[in-house]
Amino acid sequence: MTAPLSLGVAGLGTVGAGLLRLLNDQHDRLRQTVGRDINVVAVSARDKTKDRGVSVDGLQWFDNAVDLATSPDIDVFVELIGGEEGVARKAVEAALAAGKHVVTANKALLAEHGTSLARLAEENNVALNYEAAVAGGIPAIKTMREGLAGNSISRVYGILNGTCNYIMTRMQEEAAPFADVLADAQAKGYAEADPTFDIGGFDTAHKLSLLTSLAFGTEVAFDQVHVEGIEQITEADIESADALGYRIKLLGVAQMTSSGIEARVHPAMVPKNSAVGEVSGVTNCVAIDAQPVGNLLLVGPGAGAGPTASAVAGDIVDIARGVIVPPFIVPAKDLKPHKPAGLNAHHGAYYVRLAILDQPGAMAAIAKRMGDEGVSLESIVQRREKSELPGIDAPNAAGKPTQATLITHDTTEHAMRAALDGIEADGKVAERPQMIRIEPL
Amino acid sequence: MTAPLSLGVAGLGTVGAGLLRLLNDQHDRLRQTVGRDINVVAVSARDKTKDRGVSVDGLQWFDNAVDLATSPDIDVFVELIGGEEGVARKAVEAALAAGKHVVTANKALLAEHGTSLARLAEENNVALNYEAAVAGGIPAIKTMREGLAGNSISRVYGILNGTCNYIMTRMQEEAAPFADVLADAQAKGYAEADPTFDIGGFDTAHKLSLLTSLAFGTEVAFDQVHVEGIEQITEADIESADALGYRIKLLGVAQMTSSGIEARVHPAMVPKNSAVGEVSGVTNCVAIDAQPVGNLLLVGPGAGAGPTASAVAGDIVDIARGVIVPPFIVPAKDLKPHKPAGLNAHHGAYYVRLAILDQPGAMAAIAKRMGDEGVSLESIVQRREKSELPGIDAPNAAGKPTQATLITHDTTEHAMRAALDGIEADGKVAERPQMIRIEPL
Repeated sequence: MTAPLSLGVAGLGTVGAGLLRLLNDQHDRLRQTVGRDINVVAVSARDKTKDRGVSVDGLQWFDNAVDLATSPDIDVFVELIGGEEGVARKAVEAALAAGKHVVTANKALLAEHGTSLARLAEENNVALNYEAAVAGGIPAIKTMREGLAGNSISRVYGILNGTCNYIMTRMQEEAAPFADVLADAQAKGYAEADPTFDIGGFDTAHKLSLLTSLAFGTEVAFDQVHVEGIEQITEADIESADALGYRIKLLGVAQMTSSGIEARVHPAMVPKNSAVGEVSGVTNCVAIDAQPVGNLLLVGPGAGAGPTASAVAGDIVDIARGVIVPPFIVPAKDLKPHKPAGLNAHHGAYYVRLAILDQPGAMAAIAKRMGDEGVSLESIVQRREKSELPGIDAPNAAGKPTQATLITHDTTEHAMRAALDGIEADGKVAERPQMIRIEPL
Repeated sequence: MTAPLSLGVAGLGTVGAGLLRLLNDQHDRLRQTVGRDINVVAVSARDKTKDRGVSVDGLQWFDNAVDLATSPDIDVFVELIGGEEGVARKAVEAALAAGKHVVTANKALLAEHGTSLARLAEENNVALNYEAAVAGGIPAIKTMREGLAGNSISRVYGILNGTCNYIMTRMQEEAAPFADVLADAQAKGYAEADPTFDIGGFDTAHKLSLLTSLAFGTEVAFDQVHVEGIEQITEADIESADALGYRIKLLGVAQMTSSGIEARVHPAMVPKNSAVGEVSGVTNCVAIDAQPVGNLLLVGPGAGAGPTASAVAGDIVDIARGVIVPPFIVPAKDLKPHKPAGLNAHHGAYYVRLAILDQPGAMAAIAKRMGDEGVSLESIVQRREKSELPGIDAPNAAGKPTQATLITHDTTEHAMRAALDGIEADGKVAERPQMIRIEPL
């Protein structure tokens, strides 16, 4: 039997404690399958005395994670501290430079420094595994790095943030406004006190930047991701989407186009009668379109101690088995620059919701702006008092704006934005038009 | 750079030809990611002159796959011949004994001889990889063997046969009878001329027997799988399921219970508003319930040249990277005997459809039989002329049986069978009652 694999675990929050418990509970079974012992020998955290529901007796204690990272007693440094700079970055860099394998759940660190960390790992012939950094317990990284190694990926997309999906699901199920659902989610611990990072789409963008590199063999380019959050989605949008056969989900989408890579995070309409449309609550999903395999969809828990510990354990098991795969599939020195397509070139269908002022010729002016930009309409639904009325320029309560929902045929983002800017400039709408991209599945 | 990996491919049907094309198209990219060349050096098939749309010029040709399997020029034997005995079995055994890695898509071979082949592979320190044997392009085996290595699996289930799911989907969408849809599926090439193997559930059972071993660390026991097909599902069942919020899917389910392993293939009701319920047409899925990860679902193409070639290529890439994992996770010598639970102990809810004879007291007699066996009812729907009528003993066209649909609360298979046997013995029904298990997701 091969020598034991010795781990140092930095960060003993719920994930770290969950990992210690898992490695303890499954110790004998893991030894049976990988042919060697996997032992935690050292840990680091802020407070040695805190009760974590799991014993750290007999383990070396380090107050400083960087010291743990370079300890001669460990083979693998497990980073569960978090944060893109500070001690997490210092410790991971120190571990890699010292020839330690690294397993991390830190998406922010990889989104900001993924390419250079991958280079450092490869120079030192060690693994940099980060399954838990994207979509928690879903084996998306393994699937892309290994299972689909023979494929060309054309698009990867997913629901990558449980907080947003929880909020969108409850808005839809309860016909409740965004602010109310967010407040309740905060009270229940599903959303942070400062929710910007989640609901603004930035967490999704971190994860998407990693999936983008894996899909297209490009350097990690978080700053090239177009990011919109869910703050502007209203009950009216959710309700209209439902009537039109859609759900609204915050998607991260990375797509190879003829003009470059589209990497975008935004609310998107997906068919409600689809597996993606049925991904509800805090559940995440990752979809991969590739040749020759076709379309794959992976659904599962995107966060939490158990799913994260499961993903981290899978990464550790790979190292124990001697599996070292380049972090972004192709060697870091061969990663190509990320060439962004520019969102204006995005091609697709759109949902538009307009509050049309009660003025003669308002609808005609709107239709003209669309026509001038070459945007043709698949459907128009005017709404009044939560019921739907077919037809154009239907009567409305005098003086109140008419709510109208348009679905366009395929067009470009550039044309859509020009048309909506024109409509706003004409002064025929009571508020800025709402525009939501429709993502074909 | 490590020495090239040399492959011998036996079987050049659409999958074999697709694999040759993939390895040719992706040759440089694969070399970049695995750090060595992956070269097909030899092939074997029945007819050397056949046009396969891919050139075999420059490759060694073997008329006999067994000779190819032991050729000193190959490192990996790729078996795409099929069949549980004959040349496929002989060639795989010869390859493993000769110290060649084996990649196969042959579910029948593994379902019948998986344990002994795994032992042979491990004795010779070679890989036996079979991702393509279960659910085609879905990386279910990799996920279970590697990604979830730190988990305890309690249940694995899935839609594992595209032909059945295609038929069930069309029956549901078109309200068409089984025989008509099957005939059309045969005409279109989605079902074999002799469809028994697919629609009888045996193909699903082959795949399930492999998932069962992976989930529970047990010897492969195809003969312990309870198998029912979809032949008895009627339009009335599909329609009733829809009205009750369900879809009917042919599932393979392996579940650990206190009395042993339940491994069963049968039509099952699943919620229509669920990701599994939305898996339509020839698409497959594999769901895994495990601790601590929670519930994972993988959805994708279950068959076809592209998905199968993708899975085979993934297996080859693992070998090129030096990854050798025990075929059934734990070493074959440590696999436990498969201890079946016996279906009578199955615990769950049931759907029952009855054609109740127009006789006084018929419904009362039926209710008594259910009550005597401790089966309590969650709902009763009586149907007439394709519309639904609420209530019990509603009037019906004189003399014609009344169609009634019952949903039970959780009970046992033993109690259900006893109740239905009693109902039939009472002579109150015009035909054998239909019983479909409800699978909780």
